[in-house]
Amino acid sequence: MKIYLAGPDVFLPDAVEIGRKKVAICAAHGVTGLYPLDNAIDLTAPDASRQIFCGNEAMMDAADAIIANLSPFRGAGADPGTVYELGYMAGRRKFCLAYSNDGAVYADRLSRFMDVTSENGRLVDAQGLTVEDFGLVDNLMMIHALELHGCPLVTPAEMPIDVLHDLGAFETCVRMAVARLIAK
Amino acid sequence: MKIYLAGPDVFLPDAVEIGRKKVAICAAHGVTGLYPLDNAIDLTAPDASRQIFCGNEAMMDAADAIIANLSPFRGAGADPGTVYELGYMAGRRKFCLAYSNDGAVYADRLSRFMDVTSENGRLVDAQGLTVEDFGLVDNLMMIHALELHGCPLVTPAEMPIDVLHDLGAFETCVRMAVARLIAK
Repeated sequence: MKIYLAGPDVFLPDAVEIGRKKVAICAAHGVTGLYPLDNAIDLTAPDASRQIFCGNEAMMDAADAIIANLSPFRGAGADPGTVYELGYMAGRRKFCLAYSNDGAVYADRLSRFMDVTSENGRLVDAQGLTVEDFGLVDNLMMIHALELHGCPLVTPAEMPIDVLHDLGAFETCVRMAVARLIAK
Repeated sequence: MKIYLAGPDVFLPDAVEIGRKKVAICAAHGVTGLYPLDNAIDLTAPDASRQIFCGNEAMMDAADAIIANLSPFRGAGADPGTVYELGYMAGRRKFCLAYSNDGAVYADRLSRFMDVTSENGRLVDAQGLTVEDFGLVDNLMMIHALELHGCPLVTPAEMPIDVLHDLGAFETCVRMAVARLIAK
């Protein structure tokens, strides 16, 4: 079984190293992890970004499942590039798994970044835009996609010290993928 | 032809009104706009968020194309819920279109929110995370998905005064969808 490993991990200073660790965890559970190509492309090529896209899409098409890292990235919500890939895999009817190392409810997490107030029974942000208030960890489209196209979002019992690097919840996803897709 | 109308528009105080306007613009061009159900569900129901998800997914499955509003939402990038839907439609092999009312390059836009610096030839944000530096308006996965699964991202020649409500770029997308899917 091949699993596409999506996440903002590719933007970490040690992106290559964390990719190797994820692939090794997959291998230890008998599955093949496919880590995005962002760091294997000549970034000075004029079409570098397109090469990365085509490489990642080909990897997704070759994979049976996705494990997306939906930990907050540059704000309260998940990395949009990762979310695009989760949507793509749901659309391809692949098995969808994801984790977030910050299990707080979205509205609570947002209040770390800006004022969130209640206005006529509606939660709103500093710009007056509605804040989703369903007690979910992130936008309902991702959360319910996981329930309906794979496994519910995995969050750690306690937020790890290194949210960007901790792989405990990731390994739980690998175990779930194996249990659902191989062991049955 | 049916077009799914994705965007953070559903979070605006006048979400219902802007949905009506978008549907009317579609009708004026001879196509059917499908606007998400977020505002047509009893939000006090215990499974409200799941009802919204299922309604939106059914609408996407029924649509031939998507027009996604990728204007920045609560930060430098697009709304993750909208991005999920763009990915889903690309995965379903539907025709993908999108617009952003802020045509700035992502790295430049991010610098309005935090320090973006160059470190050994790599652009990094305040946390030391790599900032995509391909001269694109948003994450490469969305930008190239549009080129390869539909039409390139539409941006206005000049940023409109009301970024959240201006529908000029949206109407351009409708015209492009009609030209590509009906008139050929």
